[in-house]
Amino acid sequence: MRILVLGGDGYLGWPTAVHFAAQGHTVLAVDNYLRREIAAQTDSEPLLEAPSLPERARLVRHRQGLELDVEIADLAELATVRRIFENFEPDTIIHYAEQPSAPYSLMSPEASSLTLNNNLNVTLNVLLAMVEAAPSAHLVKLGTMGEYGTPNIDIEEGWITIDHNGRSDRFLYPRAAGSLYHTTKVLDTDLIWFYVRTFDLAVTDLMQGPVYGLRTKELVDDDLLPFFHYDDIFGTVVNRFLAQAVAGIPLTVYGAGGQTRGYLNLMDTIQCVDLATASAPAARELRILNQFTETFTVLELAEAVCAAGEIVGLDVNVKSIPNPRREAEEHYYNPAHSGLLDLGLEPHLMTAEVLAEMLQVIQRHKERIDRGRIMPRVKWK
Amino acid sequence: MRILVLGGDGYLGWPTAVHFAAQGHTVLAVDNYLRREIAAQTDSEPLLEAPSLPERARLVRHRQGLELDVEIADLAELATVRRIFENFEPDTIIHYAEQPSAPYSLMSPEASSLTLNNNLNVTLNVLLAMVEAAPSAHLVKLGTMGEYGTPNIDIEEGWITIDHNGRSDRFLYPRAAGSLYHTTKVLDTDLIWFYVRTFDLAVTDLMQGPVYGLRTKELVDDDLLPFFHYDDIFGTVVNRFLAQAVAGIPLTVYGAGGQTRGYLNLMDTIQCVDLATASAPAARELRILNQFTETFTVLELAEAVCAAGEIVGLDVNVKSIPNPRREAEEHYYNPAHSGLLDLGLEPHLMTAEVLAEMLQVIQRHKERIDRGRIMPRVKWK
Repeated sequence: MRILVLGGDGYLGWPTAVHFAAQGHTVLAVDNYLRREIAAQTDSEPLLEAPSLPERARLVRHRQGLELDVEIADLAELATVRRIFENFEPDTIIHYAEQPSAPYSLMSPEASSLTLNNNLNVTLNVLLAMVEAAPSAHLVKLGTMGEYGTPNIDIEEGWITIDHNGRSDRFLYPRAAGSLYHTTKVLDTDLIWFYVRTFDLAVTDLMQGPVYGLRTKELVDDDLLPFFHYDDIFGTVVNRFLAQAVAGIPLTVYGAGGQTRGYLNLMDTIQCVDLATASAPAARELRILNQFTETFTVLELAEAVCAAGEIVGLDVNVKSIPNPRREAEEHYYNPAHSGLLDLGLEPHLMTAEVLAEMLQVIQRHKERIDRGRIMPRVKWK
Repeated sequence: MRILVLGGDGYLGWPTAVHFAAQGHTVLAVDNYLRREIAAQTDSEPLLEAPSLPERARLVRHRQGLELDVEIADLAELATVRRIFENFEPDTIIHYAEQPSAPYSLMSPEASSLTLNNNLNVTLNVLLAMVEAAPSAHLVKLGTMGEYGTPNIDIEEGWITIDHNGRSDRFLYPRAAGSLYHTTKVLDTDLIWFYVRTFDLAVTDLMQGPVYGLRTKELVDDDLLPFFHYDDIFGTVVNRFLAQAVAGIPLTVYGAGGQTRGYLNLMDTIQCVDLATASAPAARELRILNQFTETFTVLELAEAVCAAGEIVGLDVNVKSIPNPRREAEEHYYNPAHSGLLDLGLEPHLMTAEVLAEMLQVIQRHKERIDRGRIMPRVKWK
């Protein structure tokens, strides 16, 4: 299969590109380095310096014999996306190419504008290029569980049937996200659904929960690891807590800590994207899958990191700090997630051993942890 | 009141600005002439040539003694919107500044991109400027009934309570629009709702049906009339049918003609916006009102134009042509619209006399009708 990975330098994009190369597919990974730029501007670089994308590709070729092509290009430009589609002729497009930080998206009006413009333009350009040059291709798009917010009813997988005044119809499940970044993914979903039903495209939209993890099956060498962010801008909560545990900083729980989300291991992200790619939906179908393996409150995550700390001899403390975000700190949360299990997902759960193994890797690089990056620098209340 | 009218050169913006000036408010009308540019590029100029916006403002000052300020500026630029908010300090912002043509939005990938970027950026910039410089102001935003599409259940006014598995919550009414233009308004609504609930803004979102009409209470002189488009790009269906009737061209019904929508007279648009402006919602409230006065199928509209033609001595024929759009041609349609009536709206209904009066004005300018603009030039199926 010819697989185009958009955002191929990122935390998920890089291991995805390597995974599909290892499976023998023809892979082109494209990225504009937006994540690297924002990380440099906001002092939010990953724990380990990552070589450039072309250098990473050379390293996996030499060490692991894996072939993958890479290109640095801005997918927010329509002409670029058109050229790539016309030259590469993808069967599957995996679209991660978005500005993914909620705090950054609300850091300043300029950052808000950049986030909206980057994310929506990449999505629109991909849809326009599909209509024009790849109408039979399968788009696998990364959404987020955050699109749903925290409604007081069960969360279904993307769709809901509403009975109203004696009549009935099926709709996109209602969405109300907690940050501008998450809201751009809501807009993506609306935009994608318009193009799917109007131009008969086949799309899988993956509503993913926060990911944790350092390594994948294919990526083990320190200089080939995916970006590991532990800061307040790009660090997801589990990764952030683990770095705090190693640095001897109390885990910073935002507010009451009752915020519940669905989490998954980075290895399961790769597995989910692989399963989605192997089973395209029909033309004019927008298949939506909720992509996580288990739900936790933030306090439960903090407790899990404390337990993992004990295994490796770390004394971990937990501290509640004022919540910088406008969000419910105690709420109902019951999201469906059977679609990917039905496709064959075999979850790697968040055991104390899994977290302890991550702590050991981070401990080797403890001196690189910058303690100034831990406290929230952006507030929206 | 200090009222900022964005898109103040348009079919609705110009009469709105003049109306509020006539009511004694301090008005600034801003426009980037995007509509004029697209009309020139696509050979879709209005029936009557309109003087520039500054010239129109001078004319109403001299003839009618009305004061209003105008500015030609691009509201898709954040710096421009910021400067205007800081200098003008609006109490109410009326936001019409969007590319409003469904066919244009799907004419080419470039036109799609322009539509998404213009519409979303203006909306985001207005929200960012409100948070920064006018957090207590009231935004009156023009949405469209087209956001809802044609669901198989009753359409409520913006919101719906969903009971699901024994629990209940209130959500934005689900939306699924029929063109990219209409979809940008769906995205606007999602974006606005995020800013309203996160930053405590007060917004009224008007879900408007197609408008017809040539004149308002304040605008009667031919050279001061709002743009009257009768072409396939910018002409709304009633205005288009009336021009066809005068030109002796059969009314072009798309497909079966069972497409049902809610319509209103241009005078009622002005009335609705006036009522919305006079009664701001509370902070953190997104008030959504369905803005139309009566529903018709396209065939019923054609019949109404035939009847009006008889009054003024025109023999009007009707012809079904292949539908250039992907849309249901027969469907359930039962939208609520009590909110504006409760605020005091007194509808001007679509009588044969109202249409006949429009026909008489158009007849005076019959020689200006370009018959090449009638048939649909853009298809999406």
